[in-house]
Amino acid sequence: MIDFYTEKLLDFIKEDVYPEDITSRIVKGIKARGYIRSKDSGILAGNGLLPKFLSIVGIRIISKKDDGKEVRPGDELLVIEGDGDDLLGVERVILNILGKLSGIATATHLMVNKAREANSSVRIAGTRKTTPGLRLFEKYAIEVGGGDPHRFNLSDAILIKDNHIALIGSVTESIKLARKIASFTKKLEIEVNSVEDAILAYKAGVDAILLDNMKPREIEEVVKELKGKLIIEASGRINPDNVVDYARTGVDIISSGYITHSSRSLDFSMDIERI
Amino acid sequence: MIDFYTEKLLDFIKEDVYPEDITSRIVKGIKARGYIRSKDSGILAGNGLLPKFLSIVGIRIISKKDDGKEVRPGDELLVIEGDGDDLLGVERVILNILGKLSGIATATHLMVNKAREANSSVRIAGTRKTTPGLRLFEKYAIEVGGGDPHRFNLSDAILIKDNHIALIGSVTESIKLARKIASFTKKLEIEVNSVEDAILAYKAGVDAILLDNMKPREIEEVVKELKGKLIIEASGRINPDNVVDYARTGVDIISSGYITHSSRSLDFSMDIERI
Amino acid sequence: MIDFYTEKLLDFIKEDVYPEDITSRIVKGIKARGYIRSKDSGILAGNGLLPKFLSIVGIRIISKKDDGKEVRPGDELLVIEGDGDDLLGVERVILNILGKLSGIATATHLMVNKAREANSSVRIAGTRKTTPGLRLFEKYAIEVGGGDPHRFNLSDAILIKDNHIALIGSVTESIKLARKIASFTKKLEIEVNSVEDAILAYKAGVDAILLDNMKPREIEEVVKELKGKLIIEASGRINPDNVVDYARTGVDIISSGYITHSSRSLDFSMDIERI
Amino acid sequence: MIDFYTEKLLDFIKEDVYPEDITSRIVKGIKARGYIRSKDSGILAGNGLLPKFLSIVGIRIISKKDDGKEVRPGDELLVIEGDGDDLLGVERVILNILGKLSGIATATHLMVNKAREANSSVRIAGTRKTTPGLRLFEKYAIEVGGGDPHRFNLSDAILIKDNHIALIGSVTESIKLARKIASFTKKLEIEVNSVEDAILAYKAGVDAILLDNMKPREIEEVVKELKGKLIIEASGRINPDNVVDYARTGVDIISSGYITHSSRSLDFSMDIERI
Amino acid sequence: MIDFYTEKLLDFIKEDVYPEDITSRIVKGIKARGYIRSKDSGILAGNGLLPKFLSIVGIRIISKKDDGKEVRPGDELLVIEGDGDDLLGVERVILNILGKLSGIATATHLMVNKAREANSSVRIAGTRKTTPGLRLFEKYAIEVGGGDPHRFNLSDAILIKDNHIALIGSVTESIKLARKIASFTKKLEIEVNSVEDAILAYKAGVDAILLDNMKPREIEEVVKELKGKLIIEASGRINPDNVVDYARTGVDIISSGYITHSSRSLDFSMDIERI
Amino acid sequence: MIDFYTEKLLDFIKEDVYPEDITSRIVKGIKARGYIRSKDSGILAGNGLLPKFLSIVGIRIISKKDDGKEVRPGDELLVIEGDGDDLLGVERVILNILGKLSGIATATHLMVNKAREANSSVRIAGTRKTTPGLRLFEKYAIEVGGGDPHRFNLSDAILIKDNHIALIGSVTESIKLARKIASFTKKLEIEVNSVEDAILAYKAGVDAILLDNMKPREIEEVVKELKGKLIIEASGRINPDNVVDYARTGVDIISSGYITHSSRSLDFSMDIERI
Repeated sequence: MIDFYTEKLLDFIKEDVYPEDITSRIVKGIKARGYIRSKDSGILAGNGLLPKFLSIVGIRIISKKDDGKEVRPGDELLVIEGDGDDLLGVERVILNILGKLSGIATATHLMVNKAREANSSVRIAGTRKTTPGLRLFEKYAIEVGGGDPHRFNLSDAILIKDNHIALIGSVTESIKLARKIASFTKKLEIEVNSVEDAILAYKAGVDAILLDNMKPREIEEVVKELKGKLIIEASGRINPDNVVDYARTGVDIISSGYITHSSRSLDFSMDIERI
Repeated sequence: MIDFYTEKLLDFIKEDVYPEDITSRIVKGIKARGYIRSKDSGILAGNGLLPKFLSIVGIRIISKKDDGKEVRPGDELLVIEGDGDDLLGVERVILNILGKLSGIATATHLMVNKAREANSSVRIAGTRKTTPGLRLFEKYAIEVGGGDPHRFNLSDAILIKDNHIALIGSVTESIKLARKIASFTKKLEIEVNSVEDAILAYKAGVDAILLDNMKPREIEEVVKELKGKLIIEASGRINPDNVVDYARTGVDIISSGYITHSSRSLDFSMDIERI
Repeated sequence: MIDFYTEKLLDFIKEDVYPEDITSRIVKGIKARGYIRSKDSGILAGNGLLPKFLSIVGIRIISKKDDGKEVRPGDELLVIEGDGDDLLGVERVILNILGKLSGIATATHLMVNKAREANSSVRIAGTRKTTPGLRLFEKYAIEVGGGDPHRFNLSDAILIKDNHIALIGSVTESIKLARKIASFTKKLEIEVNSVEDAILAYKAGVDAILLDNMKPREIEEVVKELKGKLIIEASGRINPDNVVDYARTGVDIISSGYITHSSRSLDFSMDIERI
Repeated sequence: MIDFYTEKLLDFIKEDVYPEDITSRIVKGIKARGYIRSKDSGILAGNGLLPKFLSIVGIRIISKKDDGKEVRPGDELLVIEGDGDDLLGVERVILNILGKLSGIATATHLMVNKAREANSSVRIAGTRKTTPGLRLFEKYAIEVGGGDPHRFNLSDAILIKDNHIALIGSVTESIKLARKIASFTKKLEIEVNSVEDAILAYKAGVDAILLDNMKPREIEEVVKELKGKLIIEASGRINPDNVVDYARTGVDIISSGYITHSSRSLDFSMDIERI
Repeated sequence: MIDFYTEKLLDFIKEDVYPEDITSRIVKGIKARGYIRSKDSGILAGNGLLPKFLSIVGIRIISKKDDGKEVRPGDELLVIEGDGDDLLGVERVILNILGKLSGIATATHLMVNKAREANSSVRIAGTRKTTPGLRLFEKYAIEVGGGDPHRFNLSDAILIKDNHIALIGSVTESIKLARKIASFTKKLEIEVNSVEDAILAYKAGVDAILLDNMKPREIEEVVKELKGKLIIEASGRINPDNVVDYARTGVDIISSGYITHSSRSLDFSMDIERI
Repeated sequence: MIDFYTEKLLDFIKEDVYPEDITSRIVKGIKARGYIRSKDSGILAGNGLLPKFLSIVGIRIISKKDDGKEVRPGDELLVIEGDGDDLLGVERVILNILGKLSGIATATHLMVNKAREANSSVRIAGTRKTTPGLRLFEKYAIEVGGGDPHRFNLSDAILIKDNHIALIGSVTESIKLARKIASFTKKLEIEVNSVEDAILAYKAGVDAILLDNMKPREIEEVVKELKGKLIIEASGRINPDNVVDYARTGVDIISSGYITHSSRSLDFSMDIERI
């Protein structure tokens, strides 16, 4: 299948090699093997998106570690062969993508593990706080890390946010308006920041509520009232340090912008040798 | 001038609003004003890239803070007006871009300030360790933060790296080959990791040397030998915590992948009201 | 907002006017007014998508009837002004689009009216049996006609179809697999063709069932068992002639490929005069 | 040769599978065979455009019926193999395209057969009343059905229409102007709606006349006067029901918007099985 | 109307200013006026294609000479105003386009004048020997110079060339095959290189013959036989030096690759001043 | 590696074959071999850019002469095999590209040879006076001919031109401003037209000076003063007839717009035969 990752990766190459790599002309025609290795620990993500791309640019994969596996310093992640200038032309894009996605998968995985200790059925979800242009890549990394991708974009599900309510004037009216124009195929969720609004939203009939920036204690109250009646999602500055507090409340979903906008890229590098 | 930032921003919107924002249909036709405010401290970057984009999507700028200014929690960064669904349709892309770029400008600015205390003429430069697809945005943020963008891509200047040398076999031979095919309009730099190779490179005739992952003490030796004879750049895991040690060596340039791949996005948000 | 309709309309123009309209050069520079009139009866759809497009190609709208209104032979739908060669250059695309979309809105409206007489809360929905390349336009026309657009594409909601079940082997197993990988933000629907499978699906936990090519009598049985417990959708060769039989069963949704692939384009034409 | 059909088909897939088919992930990795079968009678069109497209998306053709052949209910039109999620990802686009094009070929074929009984040398031609974005596909289907594609777009031949004449003021003047700017490589045709104008046009020197919405009796008069002196084309609401009346007049060409905008899509479906 | 010239010009700018004009940043914000002047003599072509493009890149036209006018050294062709960096960013593209197109118009004009002295009704036509990517621009320049653009591309008219005949085997068979598949809207021309084949082609029924690389004396024979019965075109290494010999033969059309592939660009330059 | 030449060549084909080659349908399915031969003398350029392109359009290369080789009338440059309609569909684009690039390589080669006799270390460089859309192709041809490509575009190096100085006011101030904003990775050159300004520029600190339209005698003065202290480039109406006069001055670089905008395309043609 033509996939969007391959198209994007080809675009990224153009960003880096336009009009050409004037240095690597000196290694044109030299057959070489590249070893991408980790200098870091975490969960690998991104290798699964590379095969079609590498094949199009004329590079052969000799071996590769699967996405989702743990990596440690010194691990060989990907071994590739091709012309010297091709290997060096894609090196930086591959390292940037693998590093970034593995960073996200690693952060997601950590959040999932911590949260599940306190609440075995809770799910860690992403947000739309992703890097512009990399949405699909980062959602992929979240899934590799064991998380739920949440909405891909604004057409996936209805999510009435504080700013929608601010313009409409009330939670109930917003839900009423949204329901009127919503396709039956889409879920309807609303963002609230008080126990009262959560209950109002439930009564107005939604599939899910997002409790935004509410304290664990308040969230617990909502859970007590509404658990099992709709999906309860907590969000707002949740990260590995405080995720347990939120998981413990009994919510169904914890969504975190941290895993995409603040996770650290893993440090990978490529060594090359003539063959 | 048609600029690449505007084209990219329009693409980012499509990533988020395709085929449409099914929630914001409820606020279509409501005229509104949006206030983008900071919850963070740092240097603002990105506002300067928005005007053409916002105008194309039908949003008017009421006021905006200039890129390069310091921001503190509560500061108003950008005030915009338009239809409710347009404002909410672009909100996330704007916040993601401003947050990320300001994070880079802030990190760059910090590195520049620290380094200049130890070495008043040193420059902090970026690398190609940028987010795929955002290269130009991130180079812009580096400049806003007071840094040097370094190469935009692989056609800007010749930079012979360790992997090129690994394939060719020697520093001197690599420089000789590169010089033969280089246009007179391009600078020629080489990455070395020992004092000996630095001197070899100088003798072979290069415009600049990149001292990769060398210790400050070794770098000092190179500086002692070659200062003023070519441009000396230090690189390799340099960040705000250790930049002073490198600046003190007397190098001309310190380049840092940290400022793009590991800087933290600033936290900005948008409030909206009917007008 | 940059919208996808405008981009597509500009593409359609290129299909028709490439490299140029060699006839209309004879009317270049003649200022003219064009009157788009109906020779048909039905519901208008498409006018709402034209303003930005017409403005980009230099044509001014003098007056236009709103989408959703009834039209009769002789009605003036759209009056536009511009250079003669511009008006004639866009004429065919506008007529083709308005005719096709109005045909879909008209068929949808007819189905809605007939169905609602038998079942006041039933909704008429589209399918993915749309014209390739016109998906969004046709979904828009369905909404103008009072219908539910259903899924925009394969990422909107999970809909397990007969072919998925054929490969997996069982209804229950298919639902189990789908649930495991589904984001909490997406609804889960399954296509079944017997009362037994409908009940199995309900027990396995789905948000909706699509009763495919089942007889009204069988559908009634399903409704009796499951009404109110999940969303019940009927589909399969339903058109204005038999929609009442299906509406009467009490289903929540009737989806129909007929309204997009077999509705007749309305016949509109443009007259032009010098101004 | 890179062809435009393949590019378009790849676009259509994106319209349907963006960002991904969230249901078919459950059948990823299952090797399967798909059988596209007819539930309808008519002339097959579209199979000839699929091979390159299918190969690009990783699907192998096992057997396929040739375009132009008659199909009956139950006939196997195309048998393909590939991964389950790839087959299900392209299913709808293939069925929509084959159904629509076969509908056009079938209608064209019917018109040709009926017309040829009354006038053995008459040709049935298409118009520009095609689906926006599908012009080339529909012209292809017309040729498969035995028709003449007529102009691909507005640059192919000069065709002065009523609206051009309305702006210029007279048939003779319009022809004079057009001749002055026309390349010698292009034919010059004019649309008229009376015997008098037909004769005027002939005298002014055109290659063809299009008799628009004229009655068969009037057309006969024109044929009597001008047959053999230029190409005579009849057009205007001609369909299978009345085509014989027009064919009998002795015109050279009968063009019909009906075959593209009002022909019914043939009903094809795909069954799938594990292999 | 969205035109193809504007799109292409915007592309050309990107070729020159990507990612940015690093020099002209020093004149950003300085309002300036640019004077494009001729250092050459000839016919101006290209100014007519610039207005929309210049407006999109934020440049205002103060005055411009019309395409088709004669220019002499020192003439002011175009005066524009805008920001310094915008004017300097488009300078080279404008000069390259105007110089090239004016060179083509000048050569065409010269050929037309010379030919018309010997044969007042002969037309000078272009060929497909145009610069790849500039086909439409160069066809435009030919028309500005008083020539006939000939085919825009391979879909405009049927032109059976020597290589087609070589594969089919005979002139007559080639024409027969072509006629069978040709739409009635397209002219049918064939390339021949002998008097005999010209007559054969006429008998097989074509609209035009292209006499390729035939001597004026042979062409005269063809003209004697066939003048007025079909369009006679001469081609093959015809340029301003020998065009009169061909015009004198009485052919209808003389086509010349010289005017596009070997005409000399006119020398224009831009002076700039602060305003 | 995905290269920009291949993408461009595919675009050029579309310019010529859209929507299709209506003539070559008569040779569809006939397997054929095409021989591209020279009718001219010079240096071949372009063959090296074709392999990937030809493979994508389904054409096999049987043999090809290398770029940089001398060609004489009758020489076989490229032998290719494929379907008749594919060979004829690409014929014109290939001939146009090979002819144009070989013309540029030939002119460059001639200039290099002449200049080197007078000054064995001088380099002949191109300019940005290239054909819009063909910049990279023409730079490639310059290198094939033994020249230096000079800047690819406005982001490669800083080149302060007369118009920049006109807006800033002085040579010294312009250099000062440019240096302030320039990345350390870019060379800084300035265009001057007097000995005085050349010396001023040197003192202000530049990497190179471009002596624009200066007489050989004046250039000699500059060389005497500055040789070895920076790169000295001469430019302005230099062509094969006067290049020796400039070479003799001792400059390092001679750049010439002539080689791209005024070199004559070589005359190549294709013969075809059935196989």
